Amino acid sequence: MLEKLNLDQELDKKTFHDAFSKLQFDIGVLQRKVVDLGIPVIIIFEGWEAAGKGTAIGSLVRRIDPRGFKVHHTKAPTEEEALRPFLWRFWRDLPGRGEIGIFDRSWYGKVLVERVDKLAPKKEWRRAYAEINEFERLLADDGALLIKFWLHISKKEQKSRFKHFLKDPFRGWKITKTDWKHHKEYDKFYEAAEDMFAKTDAPHAPWTAVESHDKRVSTLKIMRAVVAAIQNAVKRKEKAAAKAQAAAPAPTAESTPPASKPTLLSRIDLNKTLTKEEYAARLDDLQDRIVDYEYRLYEKRLPVVIVYEGWDAGGKGGNIKRITEKLDPRGYDVTPIAAPQGAERTHHYLWRFWNHLPKAGHIAIFDRSWYGRVMVERIEGFCREDEWKRAFDEIVEFERQLANFGTIVIKFWIHISQEEQLRRFKERESIEFKRWKLTDEDWRNREKWPQYDRAVSELIEKTSMPFAPWTVVEGNCKYWARIKALETVCNAIKSKL
Amino acid sequence: MLEKLNLDQELDKKTFHDAFSKLQFDIGVLQRKVVDLGIPVIIIFEGWEAAGKGTAIGSLVRRIDPRGFKVHHTKAPTEEEALRPFLWRFWRDLPGRGEIGIFDRSWYGKVLVERVDKLAPKKEWRRAYAEINEFERLLADDGALLIKFWLHISKKEQKSRFKHFLKDPFRGWKITKTDWKHHKEYDKFYEAAEDMFAKTDAPHAPWTAVESHDKRVSTLKIMRAVVAAIQNAVKRKEKAAAKAQAAAPAPTAESTPPASKPTLLSRIDLNKTLTKEEYAARLDDLQDRIVDYEYRLYEKRLPVVIVYEGWDAGGKGGNIKRITEKLDPRGYDVTPIAAPQGAERTHHYLWRFWNHLPKAGHIAIFDRSWYGRVMVERIEGFCREDEWKRAFDEIVEFERQLANFGTIVIKFWIHISQEEQLRRFKERESIEFKRWKLTDEDWRNREKWPQYDRAVSELIEKTSMPFAPWTVVEGNCKYWARIKALETVCNAIKSKL
Repeated sequence: MLEKLNLDQELDKKTFHDAFSKLQFDIGVLQRKVVDLGIPVIIIFEGWEAAGKGTAIGSLVRRIDPRGFKVHHTKAPTEEEALRPFLWRFWRDLPGRGEIGIFDRSWYGKVLVERVDKLAPKKEWRRAYAEINEFERLLADDGALLIKFWLHISKKEQKSRFKHFLKDPFRGWKITKTDWKHHKEYDKFYEAAEDMFAKTDAPHAPWTAVESHDKRVSTLKIMRAVVAAIQNAVKRKEKAAAKAQAAAPAPTAESTPPASKPTLLSRIDLNKTLTKEEYAARLDDLQDRIVDYEYRLYEKRLPVVIVYEGWDAGGKGGNIKRITEKLDPRGYDVTPIAAPQGAERTHHYLWRFWNHLPKAGHIAIFDRSWYGRVMVERIEGFCREDEWKRAFDEIVEFERQLANFGTIVIKFWIHISQEEQLRRFKERESIEFKRWKLTDEDWRNREKWPQYDRAVSELIEKTSMPFAPWTVVEGNCKYWARIKALETVCNAIKSKL
Repeated sequence: MLEKLNLDQELDKKTFHDAFSKLQFDIGVLQRKVVDLGIPVIIIFEGWEAAGKGTAIGSLVRRIDPRGFKVHHTKAPTEEEALRPFLWRFWRDLPGRGEIGIFDRSWYGKVLVERVDKLAPKKEWRRAYAEINEFERLLADDGALLIKFWLHISKKEQKSRFKHFLKDPFRGWKITKTDWKHHKEYDKFYEAAEDMFAKTDAPHAPWTAVESHDKRVSTLKIMRAVVAAIQNAVKRKEKAAAKAQAAAPAPTAESTPPASKPTLLSRIDLNKTLTKEEYAARLDDLQDRIVDYEYRLYEKRLPVVIVYEGWDAGGKGGNIKRITEKLDPRGYDVTPIAAPQGAERTHHYLWRFWNHLPKAGHIAIFDRSWYGRVMVERIEGFCREDEWKRAFDEIVEFERQLANFGTIVIKFWIHISQEEQLRRFKERESIEFKRWKLTDEDWRNREKWPQYDRAVSELIEKTSMPFAPWTVVEGNCKYWARIKALETVCNAIKSKL
């Protein structure tokens, strides 16, 4: 891609200013549209050191309302960041709907500097291509606009700029030893960049290479590309909105009757039980084992993610308590998931879960999870059909990314029968200190048992993977359920240690 | 405090278990009350290395619903953390209403290890006492329950535990060189701890020293103290709630007529103007100056906080834009403040602003701010009278803490006349691309002009401090306002460089 660029282009001051002022006006108006239409805009600046990324970003944002964008300066990962999958910190910085996020260097560091300087093993940066592509596709599917720039200068030009900077008392400190080292490796970076373009250029996230010898040429090309990209995105979104209003119905609760053939859940044998004595005898042993594992996970810096899903009154809370009871509380976290709030609502539905990923060496337990997308959000019509259908793949990719990082992923569906649920609801009604546990929503959900039955059976079939298997826990007998969950966790951890 | 402890106490197994099981039951019930009543509970564990903090926390939480608490393990500050005031990271980890936050070591590190090991200069750790006391008082005033433990063992006991640990293959790694160094400095730490108790023991945040030679004695004392403290807090809260229901009216919008004497704002001369030519001539120069300062702030690692408040349609947005226009966007952040959402609502009102503090060397611009507490929240009755009255002091303390850290704090009130506001509202109505800027709320706020006039005048008088002065900007002429704000920012920065 780069060899085709003509780096000798120049532009006179007047031509530049006339064109640029018009574009600045356009972008001010467009930013407002971005807010109104709720489009998340992600603009990435990659390129050679001293190619002028800072200046380019400065010109780009000059006339944008400063409340509407954020610039993220990507440096080497901090300790906090290094203990999570490499996309974690970029997820945290993603713009919400209607916001513009500008990345001065980005997730592409993994396949550029980390590759060339051998900071990441080959296996890791090669796999990063897949994860980056999944990441960008998922964002684009969610309505995000992705704009990616490579600011290009020749090796000779870079050398002359470095030398020029060194003479400037205010900017001299910016050129480091590493920069000189990278300058010498120009050809290797060139090759890596070309490989990167080939592997990550996509219609929904195209690369634009920018001739950056002349500042005016470069600034104008960037501005034009941004304006055009936003204009297109705005048009697409307005068209889609008009079409949706005209024809398609708004998302609604699922009304289709449940399939007639028996579902996966309906085939579960719920007659498994343990006596109190059997339970007590095994509980202690398993809890001691998991305490032991907690230390060893920490030593080996292995993260663990445990997902709890299940029927209301299935016994999730008591089950989780038995997992954590003897653990060192500094080593685990329990995150209860309720309806999304605030920033959670203006971001991709996976965003808040990325925010709660465990540090390497820690255990994160989710009491309900990202599977809400294909359960309650599907059934209640909180998202569109194409959205929840797409979610199966997105979730598998998400969990594969966790597993790639070394995470042990364990997922439970705590299963009880309809009769048992009714019995427990009634018990809760009658016992004063349990009454808070039962809400009107629980009764409403109960009425939708067949829909949940089908949705859960489907998600288990579609998202059970060797690297993140589901375990259906027979929950009519709480003793059985607790022992089974503990045993599953112990075995999953053991097999990775 | 420590010399009075009898470290030779012991407890037999049965006595311990009987008492402890009962307390575990109690704490389960109390945790529910904490949720219902929305009490934030903060429990701090300080004490000697190897005194058993981990074990104590483990026993404490064993029967608490794991979704209801979080344990925070405090280590040396990361780079991210070191670039902010020392309380920043603890603010981020504060529990919300109804949550329990347990700190394994805490903000007291500043006056213990940082003092003894001379990691903080004397001036800094001495000042930390005041900041810690302000912090804890502010949390207590907001309804938080604070429980602080010091786990005490003798020097001899510590040595024997270290030696014992070293023999254990799983725990040997826990004893580091630093631990041995600190062991040798036992007497210095002892003295620092006594000083800390003397300076930070308060009725709303008392210290409990715990004899920790015998695990049962220690565990039981901690459990008893926590149960008693929560019981008291629950009683107080229930009583207050009952009283509030019986007598005091719920918070309401301020109805008191404005004072008859002229307010501070009403004495502002709004006739100041600049011509377009004067404006253009000075704008360039000031913007160049601020770009230059941005580099120097970064070099010297000085943080800047700029607060924008002002009448609707006062021109805050355009003013901010002129400040940032030429700045390197990697060096500043603009944070627009709207009504609190999600976690912002379940925390102290200052919490979200702590979250957005600039890194040292960066500029943070707030478009509206914590002053909402003593403006809109006061006027609309979103908080009680005692709450907003207390806020003046809390805000002064907050800004003093920023200034102590080296932050340059600049605060603007953009002032326009009622007539000018009306003119601008009408203009916005008539120009299509400006219409989005005008909402029904703007018209409603306009009706409360006298209340705002009085509230703003009062807050400016009460919170203008040498370390965080207010500047009232005459805003009828936008040119004048922009130049004045830019000049104020430049001069404030210059005087600190």
